[in-house]
Amino acid sequence: MEFPNLSDIKRAHTRIGNYIYNTQVMTSSTIDEMVGGQVYFKCENFQKIGAFKMRGAANVIMSYRPEERKNGFATHSSGNHAQAVAKAAAEAGAKAYIVMPHNAPQVKIDAVRGYGAEITMCEPTETARAETCKQVIERTGAIQVHPYHDARIIAGQATAAKEFIEELPDLHYMITPVGGGGLAAGSALTLATVSPTTKMVLAEPEAVNDTYLSFKAGKLQGVKNPKSIADGLLVSVGEMNFEIIKQYVHEVYCVSEEEIISAMRLVWERMKIVIEPSSAVAVAALLKNKEVFAGKKTGIILTGGNVQMNDLPF
Amino acid sequence: MEFPNLSDIKRAHTRIGNYIYNTQVMTSSTIDEMVGGQVYFKCENFQKIGAFKMRGAANVIMSYRPEERKNGFATHSSGNHAQAVAKAAAEAGAKAYIVMPHNAPQVKIDAVRGYGAEITMCEPTETARAETCKQVIERTGAIQVHPYHDARIIAGQATAAKEFIEELPDLHYMITPVGGGGLAAGSALTLATVSPTTKMVLAEPEAVNDTYLSFKAGKLQGVKNPKSIADGLLVSVGEMNFEIIKQYVHEVYCVSEEEIISAMRLVWERMKIVIEPSSAVAVAALLKNKEVFAGKKTGIILTGGNVQMNDLPF
Repeated sequence: MEFPNLSDIKRAHTRIGNYIYNTQVMTSSTIDEMVGGQVYFKCENFQKIGAFKMRGAANVIMSYRPEERKNGFATHSSGNHAQAVAKAAAEAGAKAYIVMPHNAPQVKIDAVRGYGAEITMCEPTETARAETCKQVIERTGAIQVHPYHDARIIAGQATAAKEFIEELPDLHYMITPVGGGGLAAGSALTLATVSPTTKMVLAEPEAVNDTYLSFKAGKLQGVKNPKSIADGLLVSVGEMNFEIIKQYVHEVYCVSEEEIISAMRLVWERMKIVIEPSSAVAVAALLKNKEVFAGKKTGIILTGGNVQMNDLPF
Repeated sequence: MEFPNLSDIKRAHTRIGNYIYNTQVMTSSTIDEMVGGQVYFKCENFQKIGAFKMRGAANVIMSYRPEERKNGFATHSSGNHAQAVAKAAAEAGAKAYIVMPHNAPQVKIDAVRGYGAEITMCEPTETARAETCKQVIERTGAIQVHPYHDARIIAGQATAAKEFIEELPDLHYMITPVGGGGLAAGSALTLATVSPTTKMVLAEPEAVNDTYLSFKAGKLQGVKNPKSIADGLLVSVGEMNFEIIKQYVHEVYCVSEEEIISAMRLVWERMKIVIEPSSAVAVAALLKNKEVFAGKKTGIILTGGNVQMNDLPF
């Protein structure tokens, strides 16, 4: 499969323009002081469905002609990708079939249902999810929308970094968290083509450090049974995603669970915005490596704000 | 004491311009749908010190000439006014003496200390607070900054409504919570002079409904030992504040503790911003009286975002 190029990213941006927000960039004098540099936060927590995932899902779904959308779209996800596919399909006038593990947070199940998607529950294992999704697709003829290992998803997620660097062309660093690698690879590709002097940095929970290990080894490494509060980052990085990361990413930093929670609380308390733990991973990486970012301009993509309010770590 | 007039409000706005943000206005399609109207939220939770109180405190303190500021400024407060006086005094190059009850949240004590103020602890009673503050002023010669019963405070707080109505001149309603009445009176005065077709609505916890009772009776009524999660609204409305409210406010709505918590959670979950319970009182009043605001344009001032994160009601 070929990497998306700048034309793909630009086309994606045009295609999804009506279905996403060009989210605002915020600053925090408190965090600037802590770091000793200038930090900019792109608020994808304010994005439609509350996370950047809307970009990639909309790009895939809107790339099909109306007659091709008639059997709908399917995916398996317990998180923001499920909401994104449900919402983008609804915007496209198509059905969405979402396979969710029965232990998915009620708030996410409700949100997916609220967008009009048909939900199929399954056991919370990778195998059960994939198998159930396969059955749904056999039954419905729906088109599968993969959450990250797809050039169109990468091109869609890349539009966040594109907006960010267009607004702030002189960033020295950009940080995103990395899970499956859709946003990470898309952002890295964008910087490599649009702003090669901006260094792409990825942030990962220590407990799910497959990208870090892979990056250091130069080839894909797995992590078994990862557990982290950063529920959006529990998946392993995709194959194409890693190939892009290997080529275009400057560094991968890991942070502990305590550092994630502390960064999340800092952003809630000081910036007065709600970010989910996955977003806080990038903030934690910034604060843990101040010496790198001191005196520099750094952009952080706050990836989402979907949080189960009755299950907070503080 | 004379009511502030439009010139006072305009002068206040010029005076404090360098010390406050013209905070952004947000919208929420979810809340618009719930109400069946257009709702705009002015985000004073993003204001300096995390609340609109910075406006009034800065207006009082900056109205003194540098040589008049030499003995500093004093107040007693367990909340946002304490932070506002501490921060505004620091900006003015003056000392701040803050009397705080010893049961004030640690996060607020830390914030006040962080702005360089001298803190004197006292028993958590109205009498002890006033008496301790008086002693501090006798000792230091500091100028007292009252939290709401002061024309300069009212003129300062009024600048939030002024910015709001300048940005959205066609609002049918504006809602603010009411505690001591600095913001409520200032907003009502602003609308009366700048946009008399915009109706001023106040929102109050049922448990601290002195403004509601006073408004209905036409004269000041007290409430004994009020308890509410809306910790910024536990004080009774001031005398001048009530005179302005009586004359210029359209309606006062009351909401229950459950309604406050539910509105607060809704804003956190859907708008992804952190607001304190006092702010949620205005949102709760909106949602409880949908029939009034349906088909209309309503502006709500989200007054602050200072929340003790380890003591959330959900």
